[in-house]
Amino acid sequence: MSLSRPAKIRRLEGKSPARLFKDELAAEEPLELRVNGDPLAVLMRSPGDDRELCAGFLLSEGIIRFASEISLITRCEDAGKGREENVLNALLAKGHSFDPKKSARNFFASSSCGLCGKASIDAITQRFKPLKSRGPKVGRALLGSLPALLGEAQAAFKKTGGLHASALFDIHGGLLGVREDVGRHNALDKLIGHGVLNGLLPYSSHVLLVSGRTSFEILQKSLSARIPIVAGIGAPSSLAVDFAKESGQTLLGFLRPGSMNVYSHPGRVRS
Amino acid sequence: MSLSRPAKIRRLEGKSPARLFKDELAAEEPLELRVNGDPLAVLMRSPGDDRELCAGFLLSEGIIRFASEISLITRCEDAGKGREENVLNALLAKGHSFDPKKSARNFFASSSCGLCGKASIDAITQRFKPLKSRGPKVGRALLGSLPALLGEAQAAFKKTGGLHASALFDIHGGLLGVREDVGRHNALDKLIGHGVLNGLLPYSSHVLLVSGRTSFEILQKSLSARIPIVAGIGAPSSLAVDFAKESGQTLLGFLRPGSMNVYSHPGRVRS
Repeated sequence: MSLSRPAKIRRLEGKSPARLFKDELAAEEPLELRVNGDPLAVLMRSPGDDRELCAGFLLSEGIIRFASEISLITRCEDAGKGREENVLNALLAKGHSFDPKKSARNFFASSSCGLCGKASIDAITQRFKPLKSRGPKVGRALLGSLPALLGEAQAAFKKTGGLHASALFDIHGGLLGVREDVGRHNALDKLIGHGVLNGLLPYSSHVLLVSGRTSFEILQKSLSARIPIVAGIGAPSSLAVDFAKESGQTLLGFLRPGSMNVYSHPGRVRS
Repeated sequence: MSLSRPAKIRRLEGKSPARLFKDELAAEEPLELRVNGDPLAVLMRSPGDDRELCAGFLLSEGIIRFASEISLITRCEDAGKGREENVLNALLAKGHSFDPKKSARNFFASSSCGLCGKASIDAITQRFKPLKSRGPKVGRALLGSLPALLGEAQAAFKKTGGLHASALFDIHGGLLGVREDVGRHNALDKLIGHGVLNGLLPYSSHVLLVSGRTSFEILQKSLSARIPIVAGIGAPSSLAVDFAKESGQTLLGFLRPGSMNVYSHPGRVRS
């Protein structure tokens, strides 16, 4: 599967006649996830790394707690030719069952009228315990160097201009993985799913860098993988900041060479 | 409700000691939508224009077809103090009922294994008929001037750097409305909901401009409001382009003063 798809584009510049040229579009296709045959969700995603996306989504949405709960992820066998890649079924290991009401999203959706940011955070941190250990310390110069490393690794974005990226680094700045997707949550779920499928979790001495903004859901998902330092090239939302304070995660924003904002738990950033 | 929230931020620059300063964060809070008392969805959104968001979501997700199907949108009365603003209940007019299975999202989620981009587009265009009339023609110079108008109108983005915007223009470049939100779909739903609540639909001689990228869902929602010209500052996805070709909408990307890409139905763009 390719992250991009060739297309013929009509380009208008100034008053010149339209010019046709070949370009690349960010590929977007639906992926239906099923658990033990029951529909769970349809995600609009960039095709590729789908098993990772499935495994990551199951963990970060609280459907499973441990990788060992997944027995097998298979393509849907009765799909038509060329379409089977858009439906995945996760078979849970013996002794584990799927209850749609158990997903973290429904967790706070089903709360009473007392719904608010605080209640949403409480619901998530009951499922995914806050980080207790202070975890790794990383120098600010090293942190500032990460956006350039992400930029180099973001191959498809350069082609299409249409993809979000999530990258995982060790505390020495080593790039452990980067995933790109039309959906920013998907890019992170693929990274987490890579850990689920390869026994690499928890990511507890790692730094996550996302190409855009950080929101409640980015923090929720990164906490599910136990990531202690979450950085965005862009701005965080108010609820992302509130979440990070509660969850014990260090949240960075506007990360640049030489500068950044620190929104929570600054102890992990060394001078 | 304010789109931004003041916060004290720790700023690191070069090797200087951390500096505390006051900044504004993009406000993010959950909003639970109910229909006739039954839970429909929880949206993470920027507080404000919530009734618009509710009405727009109901239309663009296919829960209702006409504004007249909504009898009343109310805050949840039994909510605790300060929290009631995060739960809205839409009462449908007499003779209309809510079936969760009828939503457009479930529409293709429940499709058989034949799920693919084409099937998703077909599901949506069965619900929201493609545009037949050729609709308005707009000059390319005028189109190129819209991003600057959006930029001027985007007040909260300047403060927080963390918001997506959707703006609606008439064919003379008059700005009819702009909405900002932490979620890009929400910004568009608020704009559509404004039309639902004020009897302004269909938006059939209008131009939509979104601050970011265009995806399948942006096209789905804009079709529900019958918007003939959809433009993005950023890139479209492959499925957005496929959708626009099928739905009869003109899709523009990388819109700048003096240049743009035209992905579908170029007849509405005048030289």
